[in-house]
Amino acid sequence: MSTENERELAQGEEVASADRRGFLRTAGVSGATALAGAAYGKFALAPVTPAQAAGSGSPPKLSEQKWWPSKWGADDEAGASNHMTPAKVLESIRWIKEGKVYKLGHDYESGMPLFGKRAFTLRIIGGPTGGPFGENRLVYHDEFLAAEIGQVGTQLDGLGHAGVQMAGAGDKSEMRFYNGHAASEFSDAYGLKKLGIEKCKPFFTRGHLVDMVPVKGRMMEPGEEITVADIRSALQKQNMQEGDIKPGDAIFFNTGWGRLWKQNNDKFNSGEPGIGLEVANWVIEKDLCLTGGDTWAVEVVPNPDKTLAFPLHTALQTQHGIYNHENLFFDGLIADKKYQFVYIFTPLPIVGATGSPGVPIGVV
Amino acid sequence: MSTENERELAQGEEVASADRRGFLRTAGVSGATALAGAAYGKFALAPVTPAQAAGSGSPPKLSEQKWWPSKWGADDEAGASNHMTPAKVLESIRWIKEGKVYKLGHDYESGMPLFGKRAFTLRIIGGPTGGPFGENRLVYHDEFLAAEIGQVGTQLDGLGHAGVQMAGAGDKSEMRFYNGHAASEFSDAYGLKKLGIEKCKPFFTRGHLVDMVPVKGRMMEPGEEITVADIRSALQKQNMQEGDIKPGDAIFFNTGWGRLWKQNNDKFNSGEPGIGLEVANWVIEKDLCLTGGDTWAVEVVPNPDKTLAFPLHTALQTQHGIYNHENLFFDGLIADKKYQFVYIFTPLPIVGATGSPGVPIGVV
Amino acid sequence: MSTENERELAQGEEVASADRRGFLRTAGVSGATALAGAAYGKFALAPVTPAQAAGSGSPPKLSEQKWWPSKWGADDEAGASNHMTPAKVLESIRWIKEGKVYKLGHDYESGMPLFGKRAFTLRIIGGPTGGPFGENRLVYHDEFLAAEIGQVGTQLDGLGHAGVQMAGAGDKSEMRFYNGHAASEFSDAYGLKKLGIEKCKPFFTRGHLVDMVPVKGRMMEPGEEITVADIRSALQKQNMQEGDIKPGDAIFFNTGWGRLWKQNNDKFNSGEPGIGLEVANWVIEKDLCLTGGDTWAVEVVPNPDKTLAFPLHTALQTQHGIYNHENLFFDGLIADKKYQFVYIFTPLPIVGATGSPGVPIGVV
Amino acid sequence: MSTENERELAQGEEVASADRRGFLRTAGVSGATALAGAAYGKFALAPVTPAQAAGSGSPPKLSEQKWWPSKWGADDEAGASNHMTPAKVLESIRWIKEGKVYKLGHDYESGMPLFGKRAFTLRIIGGPTGGPFGENRLVYHDEFLAAEIGQVGTQLDGLGHAGVQMAGAGDKSEMRFYNGHAASEFSDAYGLKKLGIEKCKPFFTRGHLVDMVPVKGRMMEPGEEITVADIRSALQKQNMQEGDIKPGDAIFFNTGWGRLWKQNNDKFNSGEPGIGLEVANWVIEKDLCLTGGDTWAVEVVPNPDKTLAFPLHTALQTQHGIYNHENLFFDGLIADKKYQFVYIFTPLPIVGATGSPGVPIGVV
Repeated sequence: MSTENERELAQGEEVASADRRGFLRTAGVSGATALAGAAYGKFALAPVTPAQAAGSGSPPKLSEQKWWPSKWGADDEAGASNHMTPAKVLESIRWIKEGKVYKLGHDYESGMPLFGKRAFTLRIIGGPTGGPFGENRLVYHDEFLAAEIGQVGTQLDGLGHAGVQMAGAGDKSEMRFYNGHAASEFSDAYGLKKLGIEKCKPFFTRGHLVDMVPVKGRMMEPGEEITVADIRSALQKQNMQEGDIKPGDAIFFNTGWGRLWKQNNDKFNSGEPGIGLEVANWVIEKDLCLTGGDTWAVEVVPNPDKTLAFPLHTALQTQHGIYNHENLFFDGLIADKKYQFVYIFTPLPIVGATGSPGVPIGVV
Repeated sequence: MSTENERELAQGEEVASADRRGFLRTAGVSGATALAGAAYGKFALAPVTPAQAAGSGSPPKLSEQKWWPSKWGADDEAGASNHMTPAKVLESIRWIKEGKVYKLGHDYESGMPLFGKRAFTLRIIGGPTGGPFGENRLVYHDEFLAAEIGQVGTQLDGLGHAGVQMAGAGDKSEMRFYNGHAASEFSDAYGLKKLGIEKCKPFFTRGHLVDMVPVKGRMMEPGEEITVADIRSALQKQNMQEGDIKPGDAIFFNTGWGRLWKQNNDKFNSGEPGIGLEVANWVIEKDLCLTGGDTWAVEVVPNPDKTLAFPLHTALQTQHGIYNHENLFFDGLIADKKYQFVYIFTPLPIVGATGSPGVPIGVV
Repeated sequence: MSTENERELAQGEEVASADRRGFLRTAGVSGATALAGAAYGKFALAPVTPAQAAGSGSPPKLSEQKWWPSKWGADDEAGASNHMTPAKVLESIRWIKEGKVYKLGHDYESGMPLFGKRAFTLRIIGGPTGGPFGENRLVYHDEFLAAEIGQVGTQLDGLGHAGVQMAGAGDKSEMRFYNGHAASEFSDAYGLKKLGIEKCKPFFTRGHLVDMVPVKGRMMEPGEEITVADIRSALQKQNMQEGDIKPGDAIFFNTGWGRLWKQNNDKFNSGEPGIGLEVANWVIEKDLCLTGGDTWAVEVVPNPDKTLAFPLHTALQTQHGIYNHENLFFDGLIADKKYQFVYIFTPLPIVGATGSPGVPIGVV
Repeated sequence: MSTENERELAQGEEVASADRRGFLRTAGVSGATALAGAAYGKFALAPVTPAQAAGSGSPPKLSEQKWWPSKWGADDEAGASNHMTPAKVLESIRWIKEGKVYKLGHDYESGMPLFGKRAFTLRIIGGPTGGPFGENRLVYHDEFLAAEIGQVGTQLDGLGHAGVQMAGAGDKSEMRFYNGHAASEFSDAYGLKKLGIEKCKPFFTRGHLVDMVPVKGRMMEPGEEITVADIRSALQKQNMQEGDIKPGDAIFFNTGWGRLWKQNNDKFNSGEPGIGLEVANWVIEKDLCLTGGDTWAVEVVPNPDKTLAFPLHTALQTQHGIYNHENLFFDGLIADKKYQFVYIFTPLPIVGATGSPGVPIGVV
């Protein structure tokens, strides 16, 4: 795709090596080095226990145990969207007191940052596309879009997006995703046969926003990790109780990094602040349905453990079926000091897609 | 696009002439014939008056007066989505008593009916697209979609979609859309400069479903018009009051035609039952924000007045900025006898797009 | 893709199971059954020896030996296009006596037959795309195409297109292509890193056309194999000498099947007559650069050996780097009884593409 | 498209305003200013007379007369490709003495310069796309491309690409192209109904290369015009006779600007040296079939007459049906001092496309 190439031509290797793919490559290389002699078993992955989540002493590790079957059933493909129930809807709407609706995402346009080689190409066909028809001389416009539709702009990662290659090096014979679903069974050139985004249930739940900017007094920096202590500081500033965050709720993080959107796309893509494995364990323990943020991965990049590449995608999505909503936008909520809202989002149900575009709303 | 061509090859002219484009062509031709000698002024279009809406005697006509400026302001691009206010949200949520969420649209897939030459082409790129990265050996899938994204499947027409060529024959020098916006000012090969779907506000309002199947005792037929009397019959059967349909609400029609979805796409596309100009005037008088249905145009096709092509698109969208949600799916609501619900839908805000895909939810 | 789905809806399983993918599935299933207990070593593949090519007695087998390194060098990616040399050009142009140029392929359009789920979607963007600019008020049109560009219509298969999975069942850990190049090294979501069509040298060589229609007295049928004896009969009818077919030349087969193009696409795709392993060995022995035909695979489909799927793609392209030009059109040559011509074709050098569209010319 | 946007973000207005669209806009604005009070009749365009071509005194003007019907017939859509005849082929091949084949274009890849908002997005689908099938366990790769296929990279402009808006300002009611074909009759969202690139005949003619770099002693600069005198100087240096350039031949210009390809795409796109109206008239008088060059428009940009935008596209393509081959590559020919060669190119015949990608060959 021209985007990356032009970027590389224009900016040289420093920036290129700092973008998402750069990180991926770096992690791949260092990982490969670090892996020398490492046994396959090291990466058997496991559920988080409360003890792990509590943290203390050594930094949290990515679980090393087999992560399936899911608690939602051995055949489940909906993951934590199974939390969506009538009871959760009724619990949520109690938070709607003003009737105000906030759009929590960005518009989709050619100037938005795109990761790696992803593309977003919109065309209006014809001028107009058709007509005039009838005595009313109706004319109409259609558009044509070519894009990584579920992986550009504000987007929800589906459970068929991120998985784990079980064996080392070039052995792609076993790649497992959420609930142990194997790529050999569902990966297909014309759409995923399992874990397509259409399996995800509409979200209608309580959302909690953690605004880190006042806590830090500034925009957070790439590689800077949000800790559980940070969350508690933010909640205190926002007059919220940690105990009020309940199973099936969604949690969102504002790092300030999103201000770079369309202002400095290269810097935006070059890394990001975000949550790490400690918070991942906290999210898993709290049994939430979704994490979200104003960044392109929600998790801290690069991870403090340089041998890992996007480990929260592994811990949350692959191991626990917890969704991730990326590139959100919270300015309206923050301006009105609305940190608790009803989060409503129905993924675009393209059969076999890896994710969904779309702007969720927050209602208060 | 291969779809239509193969279809034409397979089915011959009869079916091809019966699809949407067929109707358009037919209407164009008969319109042209009928137009012989007709003055340009005939189609100056005008707002509906209550008197017109009341109907009686002769069938309702498409307004012939200039339709701008809009009541929402001379620069407005949001049309009837301006009805969305905090008060409307608060009014709506009173209808949420069970917390049940219904998906009101279809999944997007290659087997769905597509109008004319529209395409929907999904590919998964690579296998996987990337990875493994890091010691966690993360791999991932991306999809790539090429499609008339806002005009396929369950979709909302934006106000930049349908307009009117003001002069006759081949003269495209003046094409007007909602609020008089002129194609010469906003039609652009890389996205509409005005009236893009991103201008439409998220819908969060009360939805009223009119189920015609029990009224008729059968699936309605192509060209069969839903009248105001039909609506009243349905409301009575459903124990609903017409007076309860308020400005800014949305109204939906179930004709049974949607059962052909993926079962007989050619028949589905060959025409449809739906509302006509009488109901259009009723909708305008009621000052609703949106119409929707289980068909691809919501309005009756062909129109009883064979000289007109999709006149409700002209009357509702172009002249009054009232949105239209096509290819909806009401089976769940109907099974539960839920005819009143909260309709929630946020269009996918692709800047400059002509419409939006996406599945709205109905909440009760 | 909608094409296949609509086709399946319209025609039912019989036809669907008879298209290319149908054959693939059938072959896969029967192959899997037949494979039960088969050792991996069985499919070590080997070069053809003259003895094998001579045939006689039992039918020819697909070589079972390792097919690399290539005779063109262990790193070679150009295969039999290496035959293209100045000497070959000078030898070829001796055949140009009239200066007449024949287009040997079809135009690209939405009504052409497409295999499986492949798509071809052309749009003109804007109307016009840009302008007016300057006092000369220049306006212009651009088109936008979304397609499996190297695998639709008249097309040349590149050497990165067809390969062999070395191990059984779902084990994709070792997939080898021409010259032993491994998918694990070159398959990439953004373009093949080796064996891209840009590595193929422009063809400028002598082409020999074998017209089977006069030999058979009719259009050949699906599954009907062209034998070496058939070739000899055709050459005799055409007053040509087998000995005149020299290393680096190209050979073409007209079966009559191409008359179904756009006339009955479903039948066209449902199978085809063509060359089998006997002729493949003859082609390999003759050391030709390319085979071509008026069908979508050039080889007989289904193969008389029902356990094999497109074995000539394996024998010729994968094992020997001999190219295949599909969906050609010879009517002009045949009408003028021109069976020997200069075949000139430069593949569209899209870096990392699997094949090339484009119409070769035959010059006499 | 993301390309342009990111470029604009990165580089600011200076560079953006200097790219092709920048020029277009500038020309549009200055043109508009200059046009104040200009009569429509000014741009009735006319054939060039030898007197005009001779030049002298005032600079040549763009013809102001009606340019149709074409000398190739009132219905002709093939333009100067009608020069391609058996006689021309026979005349050409006399130049083939060594049998050496030169590729005269660039590979297509994401890093190549793209004008304006054009896109080129290649994906490999699946990994592999299909298989394994049969006991031979055949697997295969397909690619998917989304691009302005006829207007990216090395490309030939078709006669449906550039036209003229006959009236001023926003009046698109009459836009004329080659041979007077009107956009109102052939411009269509799904492919041009006339003047599609499939109407262009395969080129097989004599090519003459004019290398300006030795004449100037350097790479030429943007806005620097190649004159007829320059051509004569180059021919003399190259030991060629102007009289040897015959009707139906093709002429090519090497400016050195092509060295920026992939090295500095922004500078490459920011303007270019090339031929002006004087040489256009010389080309028309010589009755050539095609111009080509190592730049993206072949003509000088900006034109010395700042009121004109790409006037050679108007003069050569629109008014005379003479083709233009852009972004060629002559390094091989120049290294071998081969300035006369057989130019062979068959446009990719996509029905209704505005141009063709593809690499021509030069044979000596």
